[in-house]
Formats: sequence, structure tokens, C-alpha cells
Amino acid sequence: MKAGGHVALERSLLIRGATIVTVNDEQEVIEEGELLIEKGLITSVGRACDPPVGWRATKATRIIEARGKVVLPGLVNAHNHAAMSLFRGYADDLPLMQWLHEKIWPAESKMVEEDVYWGTALSVLEMVRGGTTTFADMYLFMDQVARVVKKVGTRAVLARGVTAGGTDPKLEETRRLVETWHKGAGGRIRAAVGPHAPYTCTPEFLQQVAGLAKELGVPAHIHVAETREEVQQIKERYGATPVQYLERSGLFDAPRVTAVHCVHLTGEDVKILADRRVGVVSCPGSNLKLAAGIAPLAKMVKAAIPIGLGTDGPASAGALDMWEQMRLAANLQKALTGEADAISAAQALEMATRGGARALGLDGQIGAIIPGLSADVIIVNAERAHFYPPHDVLSSLVYAGHPADVETVIVAGQPVMEERMLLNLDEREVLARSAERARELIKRAEESRGEDQAGSEVVPPVD
Amino acid sequence: MKAGGHVALERSLLIRGATIVTVNDEQEVIEEGELLIEKGLITSVGRACDPPVGWRATKATRIIEARGKVVLPGLVNAHNHAAMSLFRGYADDLPLMQWLHEKIWPAESKMVEEDVYWGTALSVLEMVRGGTTTFADMYLFMDQVARVVKKVGTRAVLARGVTAGGTDPKLEETRRLVETWHKGAGGRIRAAVGPHAPYTCTPEFLQQVAGLAKELGVPAHIHVAETREEVQQIKERYGATPVQYLERSGLFDAPRVTAVHCVHLTGEDVKILADRRVGVVSCPGSNLKLAAGIAPLAKMVKAAIPIGLGTDGPASAGALDMWEQMRLAANLQKALTGEADAISAAQALEMATRGGARALGLDGQIGAIIPGLSADVIIVNAERAHFYPPHDVLSSLVYAGHPADVETVIVAGQPVMEERMLLNLDEREVLARSAERARELIKRAEESRGEDQAGSEVVPPVD
Repeated sequence: MKAGGHVALERSLLIRGATIVTVNDEQEVIEEGELLIEKGLITSVGRACDPPVGWRATKATRIIEARGKVVLPGLVNAHNHAAMSLFRGYADDLPLMQWLHEKIWPAESKMVEEDVYWGTALSVLEMVRGGTTTFADMYLFMDQVARVVKKVGTRAVLARGVTAGGTDPKLEETRRLVETWHKGAGGRIRAAVGPHAPYTCTPEFLQQVAGLAKELGVPAHIHVAETREEVQQIKERYGATPVQYLERSGLFDAPRVTAVHCVHLTGEDVKILADRRVGVVSCPGSNLKLAAGIAPLAKMVKAAIPIGLGTDGPASAGALDMWEQMRLAANLQKALTGEADAISAAQALEMATRGGARALGLDGQIGAIIPGLSADVIIVNAERAHFYPPHDVLSSLVYAGHPADVETVIVAGQPVMEERMLLNLDEREVLARSAERARELIKRAEESRGEDQAGSEVVPPVD
Repeated sequence: MKAGGHVALERSLLIRGATIVTVNDEQEVIEEGELLIEKGLITSVGRACDPPVGWRATKATRIIEARGKVVLPGLVNAHNHAAMSLFRGYADDLPLMQWLHEKIWPAESKMVEEDVYWGTALSVLEMVRGGTTTFADMYLFMDQVARVVKKVGTRAVLARGVTAGGTDPKLEETRRLVETWHKGAGGRIRAAVGPHAPYTCTPEFLQQVAGLAKELGVPAHIHVAETREEVQQIKERYGATPVQYLERSGLFDAPRVTAVHCVHLTGEDVKILADRRVGVVSCPGSNLKLAAGIAPLAKMVKAAIPIGLGTDGPASAGALDMWEQMRLAANLQKALTGEADAISAAQALEMATRGGARALGLDGQIGAIIPGLSADVIIVNAERAHFYPPHDVLSSLVYAGHPADVETVIVAGQPVMEERMLLNLDEREVLARSAERARELIKRAEESRGEDQAGSEVVPPVD
């Protein structure tokens, strides 16, 4: 095992012999390709036989031989509450409101910083193993999330979840998060403002949030139109759909808005999202598991809305598996529309990479294998039964790919996992510590539930 | 690597230290359990501390230490067309009828026995790697499928797909299949009759098939109510739903009927299926990918219909991943009904094991870890990030499990895969040969499509 990728930085790296899935504008796939990485950026991608043959190798201080493998952009998990891994499997198969009120919120109210650190570490470990190089996270104690990201070497967009009411620390933590971490960890961390959802934010608060986003030059990340109940509630309260409500409140004036879920939209909502260049993140697996529904992705694609995919938090998602999100994004639309070509494999792969980058405001930085972009790439072993026969690499990846197929993960030119060995994280320690934190946290929550049975304290929802 | 599990038979085997998920009537989970296997059968299951402590070990000629692992019944993939792996990824994202008429049927018409052998071997390899110990298969050249099953050591229910019209060899092949293979390969192979679907079988033909099933004492395996078009067609032709049509034709008089898909059912259909003790196999992933819809599993569960899960053939399924089928079975019902507890993790796991056994007429033989049943069990490594923290093993398996988590696969007491090493199959050979067969088959099909453009020969649909 190599000692700390961040200690011995790779200056330049050539990956050669692989099939390269570029996700560029032409969805180009290069057989027997070569990918040259210099100072963290992709500087050249092409056929190994480009004349003069072998020129890229002369520029590389290290060469990875990848014949029989597939190289593609690192996956972008564009919505998560990573530390909620501590609650995974703790209370499944319960109705949403019972799950939140009786299980999740009481436990969250007892969380301390170390819980968030180890819960996030567990999720990041799993995400890296499955090929996720960038994730967006909305939660609390975000300094701890940033610490994990810095240590592991992945990329992240971090938002402190905030609501208008209750005991919420409002926007001070957001300002501090931006000041401390935005563009930190070698540029791998971005901060965002995180107004929780239309039903937890008043119009005044949303205006305030939009103002702060503009002032700080960061995007806003918000849950929108996740459930029918939410749509109903916002209609009753404001006489508008959740999307209309956000527009009227001025939130869409933020430099970039990432609207998560968007399961229940009107035609007018789709038009607003397109006109205001809002990025949408769909979490199809979570939307099924929490009985929310199926988002109209095919319609949004037609309206040219940038669409990314996310797992949502591990307590609602189960595994943090972006491969399954790709499959669900494509296949649920086929069932929803009755058209087997509603969303293609190429479109689903784009959502999980470049689309996610766009939705998070990272366009032009990550998401494709194009010279000039950051070298966030993964290497997949395609010599496996489920990828055979090799008729069509895009179909294979989207319809048959699994997290365990990912062998090597590179972020900003630096290996984070090699041949399934995590380079910057002690896996055993993370498993043991996260299990211990989960056990103790739930013990604290269940003990105290007896005490403040009346639910005296409203816990801010951040998930 | 151990030399051929079938050569050096294990007489008795103890698996100890594992969490045992029994899928018995009480859905019992045994921590630090012991599972004793003698002469291919489960003879004892219980806690390691059962007095006198250690008694089971005295009976075992071999002991597998499985601390930190989970033992569960082998998965039952209750519907497949395994050899169609040769077409996986060949023509995705096409409308169903175009896919069949322009791509799949022309290619199938050029298939020879060796294609079916290697295509099936590829699928069986993948299925074993993912923990499937029994699969049901409906295709052509079924001798070849049986040869693979015999060699690999898995269990299977095999049906020659037959239709009333065209160039189909009708029922002679079925009779020969039963005579040659039923209860063959040490009892691991069962044969069935395989009338293709309501829309390809006349009433007279169905009667004939039911008669043959009764005469030979084997079940019938049939596609039913997969698409809206099918329901429409059968209504127009016979003035009945597909289920009503099958009942009136006498098919349900067969010793056991396995009705695959059942996506579009009326309340009356559900009642008929329940009354006639028909087993249903749902293929939720295939139903999405081919834009068929979502089967009303929760309703069928309420009606106490035995339900199994299947991947369907690899050309429609992508990966042959029973873990994803479990998740889809549970989560799609949540979205369909709006109830997060519509189908629980325990129910989904039962469908993928014991329910599948029931639906295929293998009740009392496989599907649970109960003394007296065949020792078809798998060992899963639960020391992985996506299974952490270990709050609830059933939730973990269903909502976060993947094929790659399966380490060891045992069928009828004999290891078929150990520590991810296939014991009876040369993996490299299977990958190479199946890719070669696929390439040549599709070349033949595309060349001849030019010649007999008029579609002179109708190819019997078996998928």
C-alpha cells in the first residue's frame, strides 16, 4: 500500500490501453485510448496510436496500464446527507412522518461533532469504493464533513442545512462555512447555502438566503417538491407550487440553484426551472423507498434542464450506489412514459457525471474527460461476466455496472483508491468507529425519548 | 483452488460463527449461529452455545469459520432466458417490438446449440457469483442449458419455450427434455412445460400443454400479462383477461403453474391466481427496462399468492442481479402505493428465496434454512461499508446488498463458489468463448437480414 496520496503527489500520470468514455459533447468513446494528466488536470486524451506514437508517455512520471478496463469521469453524487449513515437500517419500512418524528429527528438532536465525522467517513469510504469522486452534502456540523473530505481527497459541495424556525442557528454557520472552507482543500471543497425546503423556509428567510448566496458568490442547494404533501401544503400556505413559491421569493436569483428531488412538477414548474437555469438533482432510489414517487426526468431533459443524480442520505437510500441511480433514472422513465427509449444509457451516464457537475455549478471544472477539466476519473474492470459480451460499453456500464466494479479512483490527478485499496483512510477504523458512534447515539436518543416525551424541542430537519 | 467440488464431495459441513438468516416461518435470525449440513441436507441450525457446546462440530468433516458473515438461503432467480446473455447490450433503448423484430428474433433464428451452451454458461457464472443457487430458464436447445447446470453444480427448472404456431417443434422437445433431464444431475434439475404466453398459444394448444404437464407430473411456466398490449390483444381475441383466458383454457389444471410478470391484473385476476394456487414470478427490473410497468405485488401478497422474483433474460435485464430485484420489489411498491411499509425487507427477501421456491413448485425442498431442506446456502461478507452500521441484517441485505458481497455459494451441500473462486467453471474460457459466439452470431444474423428481408420465417418467441 502506497503511503498517503497527498504526501507523495503525482505530478503527471498516463492511463493507457483503456476504453475511454469521455462524456464529451459528442459522447465519444475511444478504444485503446490514452489519458494524460498533468498537475491535476486532463491535458490530453486520444488514441494510443496518435502520432508520434508514445509521445504522451514521455510526459508522464507514472503510467497506469489499463488494457481491458474502462476509464470514465468520476461519478457525481449530487445530493447526500452523508453522516446519516449512522441511521442506515435503523428504522426502515416506516411511513415517512413516523420515521422522521419518532426515529430520525430524536436521534439527530443528540448528534455531536464526532458522530458527524465518523458517519461521514463511513459514507465517503463507501462512495469512493463505488466510484463517486464528488458529492454534495447538506447536514450539520459541516466542519467535520469538510475535515473528512480534506483527508480522503475527494471533492465536495457542502451546505449547512438551515430553516427559518426553531432552534436553528440560521445563517451564521453558513457564513462561517464559506469563509473557512470555500475553495479549500486545494480547491476540492465548495460551500453552498442550504435552505432546507419550501415548507421549512418563509419567503423572508428565502430572500435573506438568496442575498447571502449572492454576497458570498456561492450556490443554493434546496429540497423541492419531494412529496405530494409538500405540494399541497405550499399551495394552501402560499397559493403556489413549491417551484413558483421559490421563484417568487427570489431564491432563483442566487448565482446557481440546485433543486433536489422535483418529483411533483407542473408543466409550468418545468418551464420556470428551465428559464431560470435551475439545476435539478434527482434521487430516484430514495424517492421510491420513501414512497415519494417518480420524477418526470424525460420531460426535464426535453426542457434542457441540467440534471444530476444523487443517492440522498444513506438512511433513506440504503447503499450509496450511483450505478443503481443511473439504472433507475433510465428505467423508471421507460416505465413511466411507456417508451423504452425515454432516457438512454448515454443520457443516464451523463446525468451521473457531467449533468451533476452542471446542476451543482461545477460546469467546466469536472464531469467529463476533456482537456482542461480537473482529472477526476475512475477505472472500471470490465472483464467480468455481467459486462459480457462487450457489445456496447455505455449500455454495459449503465445497465449492468456495480460499485464493486470500480478499481481505481483519481481526484484532481491524485489516486484516492488504487486496485480497491483506500489510500487515505483506515477502513477498519472507520467501520469500527462508526458502528460504535451509531450504537451510542441511538442509545442516547432512546433514553432521552423517555424523558422529553412531549417533544418539547423541535429538531431542525436537515434531511 | 480446490479441484472440482463434484469430484471430492463434501460429506458433512459445519458453517459456524455467522449470523444466520433462516427465512423460516418466524423469519428467525440467529446470531453466532451454526449450520450443520450432512449428505446435502440441512440437518441442524441453531446457536453455537447450544448444549452440549460443540456437538455439531463433532459431526462435520469440514468446518467453515464464518464470523462477521451472514448465511442465508441461496437466491432463486425464478425466471430467465440465460443464453440471451449473448444479446446483452446489443440493442438497448429500443421500443419492444422493434427490439424483438429487428434485432432479437433475427439473431435467435441463427442460434445453434453451442451458442446456447456458452451464453448459458456466461449467465450461470454471473448468477453464481451473485448468490443465485436456483434459476428457472425458458429457452431453446435446453439440453445445452442442462449440460451447463450439471457441470456447474447449480439447481435449475428448465422449460423449452413452445408456441402454437410457426416452425415451433411443439411439444416433442418438451417430452424429450423431461425424459432426459427431469430429476437429473443428482436431483438438481427439474423440467417444466413452457407455453410461451397467452398471445402465442391457442386454447387447444394450452389444453394440450396442460395435459402433458399432468401426464409427466411437471409444472407449467408461462409469461402472463406482461404488457398493456397483451391484455388488449387477448381481450379482443377471447373476450377475457390473460389470466381468465388461461384459466378457461384449462392450463391451471397443471400440477403447478408459474405465471411470470403479471404486471397488468384486475382484482378478479388476483382472485383467480390465489384460488388456483398459481405461483407468480415478478421481474421488476425487466418490467421497467422494457417499459411494461409495475406489477401489483402488495395486492398479491395480501391475497397470499406465492411470489418469486426473477431477473428475466440478460438482454432485457442488464445484470442478473437478484439483490436489485429485491430492492425493486420492495421499493417500487412503496412508490406505487404511497406506503413506505407496502413491502418490507423481510418480505422482499422471502420472495427472492422461499417465495421463488414455492412459485416454482420446489416448496419443502429449497428456499429456507430449515432442517430437512436441501443445503442451498450462500455466505455474504457483511464487513463492508455499505452494510454498516449493523442495525438490522434484513434491511442491510435487501436495501444495500450487491452480487459482489457473496463470497461462498453452496448447492445441495456442495461448494460451487468459495471465497469468490468458481470451482467448476473456467471463468476466462467462458468470457472468451461467449464473446466469440456473440460476435459470430450477430454477424450471421445481420448478414442474413439482408437476404431474407421480407421476414419469410417467423421466429418463435421464447423470451
